[in-house]
Amino acid sequence: MTTPSRRDLANAIRFLAIDAVQAANSGHPGMPMGMADIAEVLWNDFHRHNPGNPAWANRDRFVLSNGHGSMLQYALLHLAGYDLPIEELKNFRQLGSRTPGHPENFMTSGVETTTGPLGQGIANAVGMALAEKVLAQRFNRPGFEIVDHRTWVFLGDGCLMEGISHEVASLAGTWGLGKLVAFWDDNHISIDGNTDGWFTDDTPARFEAYGWNVIRGVDGHDADAIKAAIGSAIASNDKPTLVCCRTTIGFGSPNKAGKESSHGAALGPDEVKLTREALGWSHDAFVVPQDIAAAWDARTSGAEAEQAWNGLFDGYAAAHPELASEFSRRMNRELPADFVAQADAWIAKLQADGPVIASRKASQNAIEAFAPLLPELVGGSADLAHSNLTLWKGSTSVATDAADANYVYYGVREFGMTAISNGLNLHGGFIPYDATFLVFSDYARNAVRMSALMGAHAIHVYTHDSIGLGEDGPTHQPVEHLASLRYIPDNDVWRPCDAVESAVSWKAAITRTDGPSCLVFSRQNLDHQPRSDAQVAAIARGGYVLKDAAGTPEIILIATGSEVGLAMQAAEKLGDGVRVVSMPSTDVFERQDAAYRESVLPKACRKRVAIEAGVTGFWGSYVGLDGAVVGIDSFGASAPAGKLFPEFGFTVERIVEVAKSLG
Amino acid sequence: MTTPSRRDLANAIRFLAIDAVQAANSGHPGMPMGMADIAEVLWNDFHRHNPGNPAWANRDRFVLSNGHGSMLQYALLHLAGYDLPIEELKNFRQLGSRTPGHPENFMTSGVETTTGPLGQGIANAVGMALAEKVLAQRFNRPGFEIVDHRTWVFLGDGCLMEGISHEVASLAGTWGLGKLVAFWDDNHISIDGNTDGWFTDDTPARFEAYGWNVIRGVDGHDADAIKAAIGSAIASNDKPTLVCCRTTIGFGSPNKAGKESSHGAALGPDEVKLTREALGWSHDAFVVPQDIAAAWDARTSGAEAEQAWNGLFDGYAAAHPELASEFSRRMNRELPADFVAQADAWIAKLQADGPVIASRKASQNAIEAFAPLLPELVGGSADLAHSNLTLWKGSTSVATDAADANYVYYGVREFGMTAISNGLNLHGGFIPYDATFLVFSDYARNAVRMSALMGAHAIHVYTHDSIGLGEDGPTHQPVEHLASLRYIPDNDVWRPCDAVESAVSWKAAITRTDGPSCLVFSRQNLDHQPRSDAQVAAIARGGYVLKDAAGTPEIILIATGSEVGLAMQAAEKLGDGVRVVSMPSTDVFERQDAAYRESVLPKACRKRVAIEAGVTGFWGSYVGLDGAVVGIDSFGASAPAGKLFPEFGFTVERIVEVAKSLG
Repeated sequence: MTTPSRRDLANAIRFLAIDAVQAANSGHPGMPMGMADIAEVLWNDFHRHNPGNPAWANRDRFVLSNGHGSMLQYALLHLAGYDLPIEELKNFRQLGSRTPGHPENFMTSGVETTTGPLGQGIANAVGMALAEKVLAQRFNRPGFEIVDHRTWVFLGDGCLMEGISHEVASLAGTWGLGKLVAFWDDNHISIDGNTDGWFTDDTPARFEAYGWNVIRGVDGHDADAIKAAIGSAIASNDKPTLVCCRTTIGFGSPNKAGKESSHGAALGPDEVKLTREALGWSHDAFVVPQDIAAAWDARTSGAEAEQAWNGLFDGYAAAHPELASEFSRRMNRELPADFVAQADAWIAKLQADGPVIASRKASQNAIEAFAPLLPELVGGSADLAHSNLTLWKGSTSVATDAADANYVYYGVREFGMTAISNGLNLHGGFIPYDATFLVFSDYARNAVRMSALMGAHAIHVYTHDSIGLGEDGPTHQPVEHLASLRYIPDNDVWRPCDAVESAVSWKAAITRTDGPSCLVFSRQNLDHQPRSDAQVAAIARGGYVLKDAAGTPEIILIATGSEVGLAMQAAEKLGDGVRVVSMPSTDVFERQDAAYRESVLPKACRKRVAIEAGVTGFWGSYVGLDGAVVGIDSFGASAPAGKLFPEFGFTVERIVEVAKSLG
Repeated sequence: MTTPSRRDLANAIRFLAIDAVQAANSGHPGMPMGMADIAEVLWNDFHRHNPGNPAWANRDRFVLSNGHGSMLQYALLHLAGYDLPIEELKNFRQLGSRTPGHPENFMTSGVETTTGPLGQGIANAVGMALAEKVLAQRFNRPGFEIVDHRTWVFLGDGCLMEGISHEVASLAGTWGLGKLVAFWDDNHISIDGNTDGWFTDDTPARFEAYGWNVIRGVDGHDADAIKAAIGSAIASNDKPTLVCCRTTIGFGSPNKAGKESSHGAALGPDEVKLTREALGWSHDAFVVPQDIAAAWDARTSGAEAEQAWNGLFDGYAAAHPELASEFSRRMNRELPADFVAQADAWIAKLQADGPVIASRKASQNAIEAFAPLLPELVGGSADLAHSNLTLWKGSTSVATDAADANYVYYGVREFGMTAISNGLNLHGGFIPYDATFLVFSDYARNAVRMSALMGAHAIHVYTHDSIGLGEDGPTHQPVEHLASLRYIPDNDVWRPCDAVESAVSWKAAITRTDGPSCLVFSRQNLDHQPRSDAQVAAIARGGYVLKDAAGTPEIILIATGSEVGLAMQAAEKLGDGVRVVSMPSTDVFERQDAAYRESVLPKACRKRVAIEAGVTGFWGSYVGLDGAVVGIDSFGASAPAGKLFPEFGFTVERIVEVAKSLG
């Protein structure tokens, strides 16, 4: 058995990609063909991981930010020995396969994050590298560097054109994330063709301006050059590194190399044949010769690496049992055993105390109460800390090397912030929360969607939730945002009506470990609502009867957040037949069983009025064709909040009038 | 009367800002105080405009990208002699005033664009500068430089942290927009405090990497230095310029200068008094001494400047009557007189021809038909030209100096693209269209909202509109996007069901001159639907009866886009009592009178089924509590589209079953 050349090893990636895309007649062969040599050197000489245990806490993280090249990642996982058999590669992009069009962290072991929406992979990676840095600060002890791994990122021109790359590269530079190494696939081609017409940045100079270590002019098809560059990158301890790799997209294809035609479509049977000849790859489709397979197999070395770390960790656990226990708990995504009991006690006390405060202040109080119990809580705001009220007494900036670092000053970077949150959680060890004004959730929107798609346990805090924001005017006043966020699948949106519901929403967001929550809070003070113990318990069901009718309800008022107080006052005026339903989370309410939902909103009662300072259309499915909605379908206006609510029809009188006008 | 010093002139801005914010007890005094000296030099020595005619076609454009400093702009407009009397400044941030919290182009003459959402102002400005360049290419003739003006932008650290600043600065550099000059308010302060902790970019180096002319280290409080810098900036013909102005936020305030405390709140009466003393400003609140007012008054010089240009234009009109007429028509936002008739003829022909094609292809055909009639149509795509099908035979890149340049290769920059569209339209002379996949409207979302808020006539084309996208999988498959875009106030969303509706949607988007439209198209082929002339005409009403029941409808099927074909087939199976309503635009349908809406969806008919490959909740207000929705509330999956529709329940059989199950 001959020793395969590095090019042979790289060609195994190329032809798995070529053949899988050809079989699917769909996909992106050009990038895997172009980055195969880089991937080969990185994975075989540097990447520290264990194919037998993709959850090993101290593994290096590998992120394919240019996720359309998914076959590169699937080829790597298959060749290295992850649980991704060749049959899965043959089923690339087919229903039910573990090889979807873009890498999905919830479909495929070894995929750290879902990529495809460009620029977000590098942002997730910055979050992962930040997680490594902050965990190391907290947990490492002399002789026990139990947190010590790198984050490798592949990215293309598309990622670098996206604005989010600016936001997160800037932060990575500020934070000095020395263990982050990004490989730029500098191939001069994007979908529309040669990038000369639309991408003329001096990218190395740009990254130097962010404080990165930049390695220029690496031949991405020269294994020695790549190896030297990575060696130089890992010697940079205080700066992240960008390795600029000049590559040829579709490398090896006689007629499509260097052209956009290799980017997003199968090469076609003839060109596949020609490419086999050009690269000297005589093997059939999906066949990897045994010597090449053996050279790739990382199962033994990976198991040894993890075993060595396990030995280290055993010693650490003996010397620092409490730290080891906390580390394991956090990496296993378990909450402290007493968290729920403590949270419930706090909530009960709030119900008894009845503070009349803004829900953003109630949110801060909840953070203040819960964060001491949860060292994994890492917070931040996009330059609105004192408006979002995200700081608490124990906040320490992650830009420091403090052991208790737990707060991120994100600057004005909503999208980057949110994608970094996703990375912090996906890494493990953290429950991140981030914050901005509700209206600027727009800037971060696709990262919120990605939280939900990936099942990331991230908490997005949005304050200034309506026209109640006041003088800053319509650019800053959300109208459609509540509805729009609720419609993101698997995303839980909460809009609490008082301090008690605010605390419950925080508890829900913390205990919902398999997905994100958006917590939406007011700028202005909100009344406290009286509740029985059963009602306090029912808040967690997303919607519940806050005030019931005497007998069968004739009218149901459904409200959220700041409008619940109005609904309660209107109910007083309307008399005994009125039920008020507080609905802090429609997402959670919709998950309740049909009997519970019917008990709250009996189908027989058609006189229903929904009241929310947001678009009316959303509530159509709750009030039906015979009900009505008191809402706002226009942009807001600049004025003190106290003037705006009546201006836009949010008054007790109007609710009473609308309710009385029904059928 | 003494000649006021430059500092006196600048102090007039400062105190109008200080006093207005104090009167409102709300607002941002720090930025106007910090940038007053720069604004004074720019407006008094360079800015070419006519306060008497804010619509003068060849005026310089001034954009306040850091829009929270709105009082700077209101002070400038007031002092220069625009129709903004002192009473309006006294009513800063009050309901009904023309001085809202952030500058709103639809509220205040002289405000070119609405700013406040950070980073978008500079993006709009790039669009305006691009408009100037492309209009100049088209219209200027030897001796007649009728298009020749600058675009000035103020921006702060917040704008520079936002990702969109990267996207648009990169494009401005690529395009060599020499008449774009941006002033960076380098004050080291953002809301959370000193930016050292979160903004450490070497911004001058970053902008040089984009190919900008960068003027470093200008003392933003030294009028001579500012003047020299601007002189140098306007000498740069082939590159945009960034003037880096070192400033002190809250300049002049003894206790708050240089601190974040001056950023977003009134100084307070005591500090206002101290600042008056420190700056030697002895005048009462809102009083501008006559000598200072006279020195600021730009009405005469502005009228003269416009008159000179009018003379030039008269000569141009004599020499080039057709060009002059086209220029005037376009700047007046008028469509060619025969556009509607020609569009209608094309639509009638399509109805007769009945092509079975993807609606994205139908969109391209519509562009091909309409663009030759509309030289103001300037298109583009975020690196998906051959997927979005946005190129047509007459497309010529705006990166060239061609007279017919009309196509923008935006690269992978959805947010920047959309905000540049807004700028292109706000400048005048262009109806822009931009394009990406529907799912990536997320990346651009707040700019779409800004199109609607500003009444920008921009057309956002979104293809690959559902799980019909297929193999690329859930990251690329929109689910919640139709509903979310429809909920943006004043935004018209169209999702056509065939080539005819596609052409009508394009016509609607072109003729809707006071706001944006989102045109949503399929990747896959769609059936052609038969229609009478009356039905063809009714498409423009947003929703109409495509197939009626024999007699009073027992069941109504409501569908959009690719699901209309399914609904028609289901109706066949369900028999005579079924009406099918095609609803390409709920936004437009909701604007129809009640009688028309009742005629399409009679309230008495409660057996309603809505069918759309999007979230079900949106359709609740159409089907009510007794109806049903065939939709998708989860993320999609990676597989060929033909597999996905049945997988997610979009079949004729299921629609029939659901319809039969009703009440």
